[in-house]
Amino acid sequence: KHILVVPGDGIGQEVTAVGKKVLERIASKFGHEFTYDEALIGHAAIEATGNPLPEETLAKMKASDAVLFGAVGHPKYDNDPSAKVRPEQGLLKMRKELGLYANLRPIKLFDELLGASSIKPEILKGSDILFFRELTGDIYFGEKGRKNDGDTAYDLAEYSRFEVERIARKAFEAARTRRKKLCSVDKANVLETSRLWREVVQKIAPEYPDVEVEHQFVDAAAMMLIKDPRRFDVVVTANLFGDILTDEASQIAGSMGMLASASVGDSTGVYEPIHGSAHDITGKGVANPLASVLSAALLLDISFGLKEEADTIIAAVDQLLKDGFRTRDIADATTPADKILNTETAG
Amino acid sequence: KHILVVPGDGIGQEVTAVGKKVLERIASKFGHEFTYDEALIGHAAIEATGNPLPEETLAKMKASDAVLFGAVGHPKYDNDPSAKVRPEQGLLKMRKELGLYANLRPIKLFDELLGASSIKPEILKGSDILFFRELTGDIYFGEKGRKNDGDTAYDLAEYSRFEVERIARKAFEAARTRRKKLCSVDKANVLETSRLWREVVQKIAPEYPDVEVEHQFVDAAAMMLIKDPRRFDVVVTANLFGDILTDEASQIAGSMGMLASASVGDSTGVYEPIHGSAHDITGKGVANPLASVLSAALLLDISFGLKEEADTIIAAVDQLLKDGFRTRDIADATTPADKILNTETAG
Ligand SMILES: CC(C)[C@H](C(=O)O)[C@@H](O)C(=O)O
Ligand SMILES: CC(C)[C@H](C(=O)O)[C@@H](O)C(=O)O
Repeated sequence: KHILVVPGDGIGQEVTAVGKKVLERIASKFGHEFTYDEALIGHAAIEATGNPLPEETLAKMKASDAVLFGAVGHPKYDNDPSAKVRPEQGLLKMRKELGLYANLRPIKLFDELLGASSIKPEILKGSDILFFRELTGDIYFGEKGRKNDGDTAYDLAEYSRFEVERIARKAFEAARTRRKKLCSVDKANVLETSRLWREVVQKIAPEYPDVEVEHQFVDAAAMMLIKDPRRFDVVVTANLFGDILTDEASQIAGSMGMLASASVGDSTGVYEPIHGSAHDITGKGVANPLASVLSAALLLDISFGLKEEADTIIAAVDQLLKDGFRTRDIADATTPADKILNTETAG
Repeated sequence: KHILVVPGDGIGQEVTAVGKKVLERIASKFGHEFTYDEALIGHAAIEATGNPLPEETLAKMKASDAVLFGAVGHPKYDNDPSAKVRPEQGLLKMRKELGLYANLRPIKLFDELLGASSIKPEILKGSDILFFRELTGDIYFGEKGRKNDGDTAYDLAEYSRFEVERIARKAFEAARTRRKKLCSVDKANVLETSRLWREVVQKIAPEYPDVEVEHQFVDAAAMMLIKDPRRFDVVVTANLFGDILTDEASQIAGSMGMLASASVGDSTGVYEPIHGSAHDITGKGVANPLASVLSAALLLDISFGLKEEADTIIAAVDQLLKDGFRTRDIADATTPADKILNTETAG
């Protein structure tokens, strides 16, 4: 099995190094032979080649069995709305070119972190949500530009029946293996793309009679996620709504630093933390690497079918937390100084 | 002064009746002469006239000094994505026709309700956020429709420089009268409309040197709002992002049932709860009318310049809560049964 490591920008570098180390350790423990290569994306790739997703990187991705990904982004571009070449273009192009239409974001709280969230423990306890975010359509990929001498900007959101159906089916199938509840989130009272979305979900629902389906408007869902997270099992939603709701839901897991995601579709799967490049803490050694470590677990599970190996990683993370070790983002006033880990020691 | 009461659908009817009663009481207490009229909108208007915003309603709105509004929506349309006439069309048309481009949503926690939220009291204490949601542009009002025999749906998001500038200026000016911090929320790493948004905010910022400006991506903001609500003072954002973030932020105030909003612009101001029609509790007498009561306070303050009258209402709400009275949505296990109010008694 060949794994491509693509650290990208900011803390992507630090945390992905830890994720890779864990893969190496699992390989030697279970007697697997993994080979590795590295490639550039984002700001790092722009600096080296002028292109946020060099052809070479894309070719290596397609040729590998799985990609362990870091993050992209740089404040330089964020503060310059007129920049033509941007790190995020590399990320979006990768998603499109690899056909990564389904982004799975499991939001699960490790019991030990019940206190780390801003939400009350009694509201959180037992929360376990699996998000399916559509990843290659919506307003992210429609035509965008300026008109009227640059005085008007536009972005087109688009969805086809086919695009909605394939992600909805993945979500229904996942719900079957869990608590059999699916919540589809849209804004069908205003958007035509959402009305198509709802129509398709309603149409295929009878094929999954064992799954209870609910539709929520995105504004109500944003509220309900914090008010009563336990009422959600599987959530399926469009690209933009998924972006917003999963970041919000990261608070359910105590910290964004704990959350992994899997992007899958037509070809190689990509595994990455849901946190971004976080330039404010880059290079300080305080980034929580567990999202990358848990991304490595998802990689083993989903792309390689190595469930036992994946569970070993999750159990190790659980044990680390049980032993009282914390990175800064999940530490609190009661954490003794000698239990506070930096990025490297946490791995 | 002439006030038009537009209760709309669902609990809009019940809560607006209470809001109106409070206006009447204030008028008699302070010796004002308010006259009232009523008009239809939403599902109620469709049933009566086939039109979600009858011409008569619109004419009455334009002729009045302020509108006390309820809510629109009905499950019948939500479950039928192909319905051509929908209650929400009335709401959107009203916003457009009255030029209500600025929707102010103050999110403030009454101290007494510190325990009613799903967020920890120590995270919430002292939170006080004023949202400026743009209300007449974005993906709500761009061209939308179907192509490819109905198999592809699209929605166009659009913003012009002028639209961004006028709402941004309102937000900057409000920040001046508060803690002098403005957070502008966008998704400039992906959307062209957001890049224009950020460009305009950056451009006018130097005219308000006393206001500290920060830009956040909407996904990060959705997370930060729950993680650390006190870091926000004034927030300005586009229509769709504002819809999502303010519903989410309602958890900061303990319950959506406590939150009022003011929509202002070129003509008559409209004052309404941020909660919706809530058909699940309609007619049960359990709806919290305080959002409508506080909307009445905003009406007096913003449209009529009656600050003392508005403060009297807010103080009365505060006293009601201090006396231990609660509607069901903000009650908890410790609330004695005789302090639980229904919609009418709460007024
Ligand atoms: C960096 C950005 C373009 C990206 C997105 O919006 O998809 C990120 O927020 C994510 O969630 O992966
Ligand atoms: C009912 C709906 C169209 C409306 C909106 O999205 O603007 C509502 O959610 C609101 O926030 O006023």
